[in-house]
Amino acid sequence: MRMYDIIEKKRDGEELTSEEINYFIEGYTNGDIPDYQTSALLMAIYFQDMTEEERANLTLAMVESGDQINLSDINGVKVDKHSTGGVGDTTTLILAPLVASVGVPVAKMSGRGLGHTGGTIDKLESVPGFHVEISNDEFINLVNRNKVAVIGQSGNLTPADKKIYGLRDVTATVSSIPLIASSIMSKKIASGADAIVLDVKTGSGAFMKELKDAQSLAKAMVSIGNKVGRNTMAVISDMSQPLGYAIGNALEVKEAIETLKGKGPEDLTELCLTLGSQMVVLAKQAENLDEARNKLEENLRNGKAFEKFKEFLESQGGDPSVADQPELLPQAKYKIDVPAKEAGTVSEIVANEIGTAAMMLGAGRATKESEIDLGVGIVLHKKIGDSVEKGETLLTVHSNKEDIEEVKQLLYKNITIASSEIKAPTLIYEVYTD
Amino acid sequence: MRMYDIIEKKRDGEELTSEEINYFIEGYTNGDIPDYQTSALLMAIYFQDMTEEERANLTLAMVESGDQINLSDINGVKVDKHSTGGVGDTTTLILAPLVASVGVPVAKMSGRGLGHTGGTIDKLESVPGFHVEISNDEFINLVNRNKVAVIGQSGNLTPADKKIYGLRDVTATVSSIPLIASSIMSKKIASGADAIVLDVKTGSGAFMKELKDAQSLAKAMVSIGNKVGRNTMAVISDMSQPLGYAIGNALEVKEAIETLKGKGPEDLTELCLTLGSQMVVLAKQAENLDEARNKLEENLRNGKAFEKFKEFLESQGGDPSVADQPELLPQAKYKIDVPAKEAGTVSEIVANEIGTAAMMLGAGRATKESEIDLGVGIVLHKKIGDSVEKGETLLTVHSNKEDIEEVKQLLYKNITIASSEIKAPTLIYEVYTD
Repeated sequence: MRMYDIIEKKRDGEELTSEEINYFIEGYTNGDIPDYQTSALLMAIYFQDMTEEERANLTLAMVESGDQINLSDINGVKVDKHSTGGVGDTTTLILAPLVASVGVPVAKMSGRGLGHTGGTIDKLESVPGFHVEISNDEFINLVNRNKVAVIGQSGNLTPADKKIYGLRDVTATVSSIPLIASSIMSKKIASGADAIVLDVKTGSGAFMKELKDAQSLAKAMVSIGNKVGRNTMAVISDMSQPLGYAIGNALEVKEAIETLKGKGPEDLTELCLTLGSQMVVLAKQAENLDEARNKLEENLRNGKAFEKFKEFLESQGGDPSVADQPELLPQAKYKIDVPAKEAGTVSEIVANEIGTAAMMLGAGRATKESEIDLGVGIVLHKKIGDSVEKGETLLTVHSNKEDIEEVKQLLYKNITIASSEIKAPTLIYEVYTD
Repeated sequence: MRMYDIIEKKRDGEELTSEEINYFIEGYTNGDIPDYQTSALLMAIYFQDMTEEERANLTLAMVESGDQINLSDINGVKVDKHSTGGVGDTTTLILAPLVASVGVPVAKMSGRGLGHTGGTIDKLESVPGFHVEISNDEFINLVNRNKVAVIGQSGNLTPADKKIYGLRDVTATVSSIPLIASSIMSKKIASGADAIVLDVKTGSGAFMKELKDAQSLAKAMVSIGNKVGRNTMAVISDMSQPLGYAIGNALEVKEAIETLKGKGPEDLTELCLTLGSQMVVLAKQAENLDEARNKLEENLRNGKAFEKFKEFLESQGGDPSVADQPELLPQAKYKIDVPAKEAGTVSEIVANEIGTAAMMLGAGRATKESEIDLGVGIVLHKKIGDSVEKGETLLTVHSNKEDIEEVKQLLYKNITIASSEIKAPTLIYEVYTD
């Protein structure tokens, strides 16, 4: 077998066999196949796409390129959730205890990563004492006992994906549906998920700006999951404006707590119930989505989800009293209200730019070495469709530096107030359950 | 400027500016831009093509990446001829003295190369004493005096093209019209040609198997030439069967001599007159193609072309008496007639396979280190459309080894005799003069 022939075959629009895909992934991972042949193949895939069969085979080949987490000692169906990423996306913090409270085992492996705010682990570490440095045995015991635990990423998962992603990033081949879908799915599968729920975002703050691209990606991932024997469902949700009101690590933890008490923002709550229902069904803890949703709503109302969150914090060394006294979370020195310059209806809150503003305050990492400032961020007071008076507070900036002029300018530039009536954007565009 | 943006722009089907193309070519030549980004761009070009403007700019950028031969001390318009390569293609050996005999300066820089037979220099070296190791001054003086000289390739011509070609060869991006066209044209322009005549072959023995691809390539090269100020014409000619009857170095020299005496094969003579007429017009030695052709035909008849050939051989150390006594050329030890196994009409002579048979005898180089056996090769007795009796000689194998069973099998397999009447294939499909 020769890499040249594989490139030529894909270039000509033919379907690669699983042997050819394995040959490529093994050869590239171990260095036998050079970057320059791989980038040519990736560009050919960009133009010629891959069949469902090829996508599934590529995913499995990447899973097999490295370690695979074995969660078989955990009872029940392990369902993982993945979001393609957005601004103010606190769903994991809410979903983990929420679905655990109805009996779904949540064995969450999480990273830190780069972005507007930290990752799930960074957010959780704003709870004093909370830590993810636990042994594998401890992790498995915790999930079996409490149904929920979080551990930091370890092991050499999907090295092929890491190497290919690095190459795509410098050869303009990131935005290819089969490559994105197989990359995401391979990581989830290598992390030991039996079933997967996907939250594919669309809008200005999402990687997929256009709905049709988000649809293609969702379909591609659901197809891969089901082809490789991992039941997969997906939701396409709005990321034209930030999700919820809070953007920032401790601020999002506080918002998650409010949501678990049943008093969270409407959009965040709704998305958690939608995604959570899919997780519950996939974990076989409900017959259908309606039954699942009823169970979750009940546990938000009766306090069981909230209690599960406290138990979860405590079992990993965190101070559970933050759940009742969020003021124990890291606080920024300055809380600066930013008023509306005119009256009207909020018509636009450009999500990625609001995220950048939060990052400028120190809420996220620009490079792997950056330190995160857990207390800072932005809390919106208005969202798209809300009316506002001149001088009324649009949002509050939580900052540890007094001069926030640059951040304010960026925020004003990316929040538009219109004189006409504006409807709130659709939150959930589509639900894929097959 | 960033290579990433250039890849992305081309990927999205946009036109690259000359600054972007220069940035890429300079950066790749000096090693600032890595192979993996270049191969991604090449694959994007494969799919998105290039505009005429881009192709011309790419050609010029490659010309400027290295040395350029200065032929300005040679009087007149220097016209170069290029063939995309075929089997039994002896046109250069005929055209050089033929057009020189009507006053066209022929300053030929030639290589050895790999292939079924040697290159022009190898063929000429079958004339005892002939050599191309002459100084630049000697070369220029010879062309000014005799109108014709041949020199071996020297200098660092189009290093960008060499590097890019090497990468295309391993990334399945060779067969891209803008890349082929700019590669050929950059080499001709860097070699100092004022005007260029192109012989684009089509058929089984050609790189462009399909007529439509040959047409695209011819148009692309004529457009580039004229855009960068080098008058360019092209011919599309048949390469479904070998050109002329001889395939082999000394054998082709002998056939060239016969053609220069006006007694050559019909197809080879016709192609030389067609290409030669274009060369004469581009060199401004005739007003139009008809006038040019008349001059060339006259010099074939009156012996001036033949005399020019002898003068050319002698001035570069060759023994001119070979022209009158071709038996002085290297001879193979065995001349083995291969008879037809049945009667009928020759319907197919698969050019590339006949070429391979010649190479198996030792007529060509498989690797750069291979030694060429100048005396060996194949002489056809029949061509497509000729009728043949059972047992009549189809071709003669000139070999230095007695056992030619394998070669014979290959030849039989690739020459078909039909029971129905067959027309000879079209020799010249199209002539581009604009």
